[in-house]
Amino acid sequence: MTTQLLSPAELEAALKQIGAERYHSLHPFHELMYQGKLNRGQLQAWALNRYYYQCRIPAKDATLIARLPTPELRRAWRRRLHDHDGDEPNTGGIERWLRLTDGLGLDRDYVISTSGLLPITRFAVDAYVDIVRDRPILEGIASCLTELFSPTIIAERVGGMLANYDFITADTLGYFTPRLDQAPMDAEFALDYVKQHARTPEQQSAVLAVLRTNATFSGLCSTRCIWLMLNQE
Amino acid sequence: MTTQLLSPAELEAALKQIGAERYHSLHPFHELMYQGKLNRGQLQAWALNRYYYQCRIPAKDATLIARLPTPELRRAWRRRLHDHDGDEPNTGGIERWLRLTDGLGLDRDYVISTSGLLPITRFAVDAYVDIVRDRPILEGIASCLTELFSPTIIAERVGGMLANYDFITADTLGYFTPRLDQAPMDAEFALDYVKQHARTPEQQSAVLAVLRTNATFSGLCSTRCIWLMLNQE
Repeated sequence: MTTQLLSPAELEAALKQIGAERYHSLHPFHELMYQGKLNRGQLQAWALNRYYYQCRIPAKDATLIARLPTPELRRAWRRRLHDHDGDEPNTGGIERWLRLTDGLGLDRDYVISTSGLLPITRFAVDAYVDIVRDRPILEGIASCLTELFSPTIIAERVGGMLANYDFITADTLGYFTPRLDQAPMDAEFALDYVKQHARTPEQQSAVLAVLRTNATFSGLCSTRCIWLMLNQE
Repeated sequence: MTTQLLSPAELEAALKQIGAERYHSLHPFHELMYQGKLNRGQLQAWALNRYYYQCRIPAKDATLIARLPTPELRRAWRRRLHDHDGDEPNTGGIERWLRLTDGLGLDRDYVISTSGLLPITRFAVDAYVDIVRDRPILEGIASCLTELFSPTIIAERVGGMLANYDFITADTLGYFTPRLDQAPMDAEFALDYVKQHARTPEQQSAVLAVLRTNATFSGLCSTRCIWLMLNQE
């Protein structure tokens, strides 16, 4: 609990510290993945579960847009819908994620059905959408700040996977390339908003708490759930 | 209650019949307005109340987008966000509506505050957003079919107002010009969806019922509320 008001710079540092301490780049599953130590079935499980996160991202963003009070804010946030759903058929982040699941040999209809999903993945992703729907707008925006942390993990993941798995190509990992530009741009907008609008110790505590929660959810969606599964095998 | 299955063409005819019987183009307030029989204060009251409808349209559309299951559907519906919020500052339907309230001599901050709104307007508009949030997607989409009826009312309104009020210019009524193209395009998409997806008598009854309700709401937002007010003066 923050008891004194942080300056905007201190708040930014505290938010970034959460990534340094909690983001799933620190998780052993991430290390195994980029070091080439997972088998194809384990990578399939990761991609299949993470698909649910990808396909719910536009729902999360549209839910927030529905709550944003001005055309300016809605226009800025709308970019995310374009990024994930694309502007034409067979474009956008969801389509690119499906090329990853294709490349790993998963049936597209099976992936889209989400019938193979681990329950914990569904729980974590739905909880993220719920935050954006139910919490104050400021916290909804702060919850998206996990994007601050993603470029590092993406760079490690892509470089490592291309080097260490002979069945993975640059095309299969095409999802990640635009994210290296999109994520920092989105994170910058959200960070500016949060620094400007979290003006009391209570609001600052709330945005730090929601990012802590969401850094955990984000890990649940993409690595921790699979880790649990691997350990149960 | 529809007890037998209608063909797509019969369903379309039944939906359009609702407009012919219930849309607020039939209301005496609309006639007074385009015939030049309202004073400036009465037109201000109309524009002020109708602003709330305009400013909540993106919330309605984003709420629906959040529920739509595929990138294809979300991309198609996203066009409405662009139409209402614009692509640049000072563009889009909400901005153009504010030029109407400007032109009628209303203070922009007062309009945007919605503090002068009639309670019944707030009720009707919020009920529309609730339909799209809470009812099945099919009904949410059907509720937007009031756009089938708007080109006729717009043509009468714009022509009549320009002819009959010396304080109203084409620029003031600029909101309506793009709607003559946007509304039919949007309505066609929604109508196709409804004809394709309302496949049981129960679903067909539901889409007819929701359009009946929304044709009434739409009148509440823009004419009936003001009519009530005029009759109370």
